[in-house]
Amino acid sequence: MTNHNDPILGRRAMAMLDSLARHSDDPDRLTRLYLSKAHRSAAEETLSLMREAGLDAHIDPLGSVIGRMEGANPGAPALLIGSHIDTVIDAGRYDGTLGVVLGIVAAEALREEGIVPSCPIEVVAFGDEENARFPTNLSTSYAFSGNYRPEWLEGRDESGTTLREALLRFGGDPERIGTIARDPKRYRGYLEVHIEQGPQLEANGLPVGLVSAINGVSRARATVIGEAGHAGTVPMPMRRDALAAAAEMIVAVERAGAIRQDTVATVGSAKVTPGAINVIPARVDFTLDARSPDDAVRHAMVADILAECRSIAGKRGVTFTVEPFMDSPATPMDRSLLGLLEEAVRAAGIPPRHLASGAGHDAVAMAALCPVAMLFVRCKGGISHNPAESITLEDADIAARVLLETVKKIVS
Amino acid sequence: MTNHNDPILGRRAMAMLDSLARHSDDPDRLTRLYLSKAHRSAAEETLSLMREAGLDAHIDPLGSVIGRMEGANPGAPALLIGSHIDTVIDAGRYDGTLGVVLGIVAAEALREEGIVPSCPIEVVAFGDEENARFPTNLSTSYAFSGNYRPEWLEGRDESGTTLREALLRFGGDPERIGTIARDPKRYRGYLEVHIEQGPQLEANGLPVGLVSAINGVSRARATVIGEAGHAGTVPMPMRRDALAAAAEMIVAVERAGAIRQDTVATVGSAKVTPGAINVIPARVDFTLDARSPDDAVRHAMVADILAECRSIAGKRGVTFTVEPFMDSPATPMDRSLLGLLEEAVRAAGIPPRHLASGAGHDAVAMAALCPVAMLFVRCKGGISHNPAESITLEDADIAARVLLETVKKIVS
Repeated sequence: MTNHNDPILGRRAMAMLDSLARHSDDPDRLTRLYLSKAHRSAAEETLSLMREAGLDAHIDPLGSVIGRMEGANPGAPALLIGSHIDTVIDAGRYDGTLGVVLGIVAAEALREEGIVPSCPIEVVAFGDEENARFPTNLSTSYAFSGNYRPEWLEGRDESGTTLREALLRFGGDPERIGTIARDPKRYRGYLEVHIEQGPQLEANGLPVGLVSAINGVSRARATVIGEAGHAGTVPMPMRRDALAAAAEMIVAVERAGAIRQDTVATVGSAKVTPGAINVIPARVDFTLDARSPDDAVRHAMVADILAECRSIAGKRGVTFTVEPFMDSPATPMDRSLLGLLEEAVRAAGIPPRHLASGAGHDAVAMAALCPVAMLFVRCKGGISHNPAESITLEDADIAARVLLETVKKIVS
Repeated sequence: MTNHNDPILGRRAMAMLDSLARHSDDPDRLTRLYLSKAHRSAAEETLSLMREAGLDAHIDPLGSVIGRMEGANPGAPALLIGSHIDTVIDAGRYDGTLGVVLGIVAAEALREEGIVPSCPIEVVAFGDEENARFPTNLSTSYAFSGNYRPEWLEGRDESGTTLREALLRFGGDPERIGTIARDPKRYRGYLEVHIEQGPQLEANGLPVGLVSAINGVSRARATVIGEAGHAGTVPMPMRRDALAAAAEMIVAVERAGAIRQDTVATVGSAKVTPGAINVIPARVDFTLDARSPDDAVRHAMVADILAECRSIAGKRGVTFTVEPFMDSPATPMDRSLLGLLEEAVRAAGIPPRHLASGAGHDAVAMAALCPVAMLFVRCKGGISHNPAESITLEDADIAARVLLETVKKIVS
């Protein structure tokens, strides 16, 4: 039995996380790209960890690792628990991998407690969440929900290798991808624990939080074209300064994100041409990233941003063009699963806090298969995708216990 | 005698400009860097043109070409007329060279009209105005006014050649630079005609304008440091976005330039780090260029800009640091010379318009030797430092006549 004063589940999770962090494509930092050698060895260690936990485990034709515990009623829809084990370049060890190891820890705990679940439980370690190697996004979890697109196999990484070639080298099987797709009738839900990747839980002194929705995302590339001129000789009223115009637009983007509930809007990149101290800028290219848990709110926000940019451009006599290239809808969480997670959070003595997920997760792809819900874990400074990514043993333990209690309620 | 209905002086000037434009370091565009082969051959052609105009001409130890016409009273202080014949890379043919050929045209016209000036006249073609090859700025005209610094000889061009080496190859003489310095008592004034390099004359339908002063210039490099973060997960109120802060500052710089009379303020370059669509910018480096004909106004403007940037930084929790690296004072024009130029402009039937020069000119260096005044000539679209640089034959003729009439008044 778990002694709740001793963070035994957290300790087990942290040990697995440390061990998996050894699998890296780079010697001096953690980089584990989809279908790389490090991904292969991490998948094999995950396979071993699952088997040690008593799961019937295999690596699927796209490299995902799946461990299954049968239930008292083998025909009952199964509960899925998981996340991903691929990382960005120069990553931290918790993003993704935490959700996989907590699934294994939960299964292990059930077995140690002698609990036979009423339905099967599957723990999943997806492999292509970070979009860090191929042009794909969530391809392994989309395969699970039956949405794999064959053209993804032809996408190339930076060195020109296709996903198909990398998959064959990894030991996968492009011919058998169709066999990965699950039947929705056979799955009751998907639970994913993930580090928050933001500062809200830390700022509020909370170890875990409940994801209310995964934000939808709009992205666009914008261009402002004015007129170059000598910074000394063109009087202010005769200028068509592309940078001054873009600066006003950037402030407007920020304001549009700030005035709405739960939205964010960011200009992450701006490139000034020609970019000389004594030349009035002729052109600025900038990016837009806008997110909201509510698609209607997001679309209204983006429309307002574009209207404001056009108005600024008109007033200043510069041209504004915009090329939207992403409109990814929000993923709502299942109310029933979320309710069970919330009960478990309360039972652990933690005030339940709901927060939208600004980043995407495998749960987005899994929502096409079955109800999904996510639990966020506080991370130091809100930092992720960085070696400074960090969680505490205590928080890992709380997250493990909340997950375990939720699973127990679902499978009891 | 000049027939004022036939633009004979303008035609002569345009012919010389076309001929000098053939001297280029690049085969397909006009590039004539200080002390290059093209500079040498252009200086030799200038020498010939001066001699044809009856001037006693030579190339000085730094490559400037000087042509002298003696006056009735050889001991009287001389009148200087000139500009420069070096160009930027991929230049137009009028910037600088126009002022040199109009000096030659004026001397030629005096001789043709049989006028013997009361004082000597010297036409000067300086060689290092564009700051396009060595780190020097106005070195040849500063030598004239006795302000040459020996360390300038050690400055290197892009290929590593020192100015001293280039000067020796050109046929100059670094040992005799000291002989270039003129005695202020022996010079009564310097007149320089130059294309406007801005759009004001064209916008006002005027062929020529009177330079009220050459603007002083302040330059600085500024850095805003905020905090990087995930563009999806960090809520707007918790951000310290370096680009949003810099954008507010850039708008403030523009406003500071616009609200004052005759001032300009420009952010020409801004570099965003890390510059990814999904990362809140951590740092922005931008440049500041602020100019005014009045140094007190310029200093107040820069102080206001910096105070406003600091206030924006404080409000947003980002750091703002600034490194000023240029504080070049304004050059006033001599009232008496300017009055004579204005009389000649009025006599040509043109409403006199006074405008500050936003760009620097050899007149800045010559102001240390004697009174200076400048006449601007309308250029198409305000464009300079570009092959599209253009003036009309008619405007060249008006400028030539205004200069000639002014010279006549001074030397009569």
